[in-house]
Amino acid sequence: MFDKLIEKIIEKNNPTVMGLDPKLEYIPEFIKAEAISQYGKTAKAAAWALFEFNKGLIDAAAELIPAIKPQSAYYEMYGFEGVKCLFDTINYAKSKGLYVITDAKRNDIGATAESYATAYLGETDIFGERQAMFNSDALTVNGYLGTDGLAPFVAACENFDKGIFVLAKTSNKSSGELQDLEVDGRKIYEIMGNLCETLADGNYGKYGYSSVGAVVGATYPEQLTELRKKLPHTFFLIPGYGAQGGGAKGLKGAFDENGLGGIVNSSRAIMCAYKTQKCGEKDYAKAAQREILRMKEDLLQNK
Amino acid sequence: MFDKLIEKIIEKNNPTVMGLDPKLEYIPEFIKAEAISQYGKTAKAAAWALFEFNKGLIDAAAELIPAIKPQSAYYEMYGFEGVKCLFDTINYAKSKGLYVITDAKRNDIGATAESYATAYLGETDIFGERQAMFNSDALTVNGYLGTDGLAPFVAACENFDKGIFVLAKTSNKSSGELQDLEVDGRKIYEIMGNLCETLADGNYGKYGYSSVGAVVGATYPEQLTELRKKLPHTFFLIPGYGAQGGGAKGLKGAFDENGLGGIVNSSRAIMCAYKTQKCGEKDYAKAAQREILRMKEDLLQNK
Repeated sequence: MFDKLIEKIIEKNNPTVMGLDPKLEYIPEFIKAEAISQYGKTAKAAAWALFEFNKGLIDAAAELIPAIKPQSAYYEMYGFEGVKCLFDTINYAKSKGLYVITDAKRNDIGATAESYATAYLGETDIFGERQAMFNSDALTVNGYLGTDGLAPFVAACENFDKGIFVLAKTSNKSSGELQDLEVDGRKIYEIMGNLCETLADGNYGKYGYSSVGAVVGATYPEQLTELRKKLPHTFFLIPGYGAQGGGAKGLKGAFDENGLGGIVNSSRAIMCAYKTQKCGEKDYAKAAQREILRMKEDLLQNK
Repeated sequence: MFDKLIEKIIEKNNPTVMGLDPKLEYIPEFIKAEAISQYGKTAKAAAWALFEFNKGLIDAAAELIPAIKPQSAYYEMYGFEGVKCLFDTINYAKSKGLYVITDAKRNDIGATAESYATAYLGETDIFGERQAMFNSDALTVNGYLGTDGLAPFVAACENFDKGIFVLAKTSNKSSGELQDLEVDGRKIYEIMGNLCETLADGNYGKYGYSSVGAVVGATYPEQLTELRKKLPHTFFLIPGYGAQGGGAKGLKGAFDENGLGGIVNSSRAIMCAYKTQKCGEKDYAKAAQREILRMKEDLLQNK
């Protein structure tokens, strides 16, 4: 269920998730200089800088937002040191009371999907002892392989009170190439959305949403509105606000009559707010706060 | 291009890729005991055991097969220590002359896909210096997001002489739920296959294949035959032989008139051959060799 997430959204009165996609080029020079002085020009130094930057952003955002969404690609790009930074970032955010959606778009056949579900949502058997590994609250997944590829994620949601977001209509320009194709009068993104409702199997939390959510891009307001109506139990993760061009006005249809039902991601606009605001890099966390508050107003005014 | 891979297939006269999906339960007790004695019951010990096991299998297989395919999920399941083991496994296999296909089914919007492409196929900018991270020869990817999500992978193939395999028709039972849907007389798996041909943009290697391959399951021989005919420049990665129920007889149609055009994966049947053969766990590598030779005969007789 997404009850834990929804409660945090209500508590903060803010349906924003801060995307943490920390490329080195986004990180203030003073952090990078410190990293290099400690570890040289190495992947370890890069990972250290990423984590320092993330900690500052998480500290700044923890009182203002319900959730973070680290994008796994940007950590994997720095090798296993980067992946350790992902692990540290998830744990740090959780220690600050934030809900963590790991954006990794994992997918595979059943037996292998089970390992991904274990890695990100469940507990791994380590010589007979169960240990949580990446221990996210939720994970994005890709449903191209059908039900048996998604079932292990759904099972992990049930067993560990977690959530997944299945890709339905993604925010990118060419998403329509496959996702807008029509089969017997229904688009593929709708078919994937319906699969979310089916997988939920009638298990809804106290706000009416199941643990199987969907990714629907802010860049496609019509589809957001359409899917909100057709998928009453499917919570939405909404990327593409801001840097990708989706505005708050188009998001009205993404929410239910209680103003719930979706969480809107912003990554670069928050992480790089200090560049846009030209406030000096030492103030990167304060700049992020200002952008979070600006975005919150924008979302609330248009909800 | 897949020229490097195809040359290794010809040299070894064997179109087999050894899948390395090393769950702890597959690993001989003597390796696990050593791991625990060194590192306790920890993820680090698990990762050490995985790598020891993999090294034995790689040493045993290096003269007999052209390639390995580590499945990322089984490493991620052991946290960042497991991911370090993936890194070490890739490097060890390459040092033994093997071609490495990392099976990670990555996918995202363009900017993020670029980071995945960098992580697995390219070079990361570490404070102005370029370093290869996971440095695979090829990567599996999921095309649900369309062309702009695949383009960065294709670019990495061109820039670093690598390959990708786009999911077309996967080997699992429910693959048809989405992949067999028909749009204007064409199934989705065929549409994804055609996308591979389009993305290749006329760039073919000396055996006629581009750097954009497709995943087509051994469990669907009809579709293998159909796609081989329709996609003359698309090299196939064929999972599902053996444990998943796909036999060598059905693979005939996967190959071109030169007996090329595809590589067949086997994971558990090779890794756990010592269990099936009841030969004692110390002989796990020899048992793997025997299974590789058995499979090679099976494939060659039915090609």
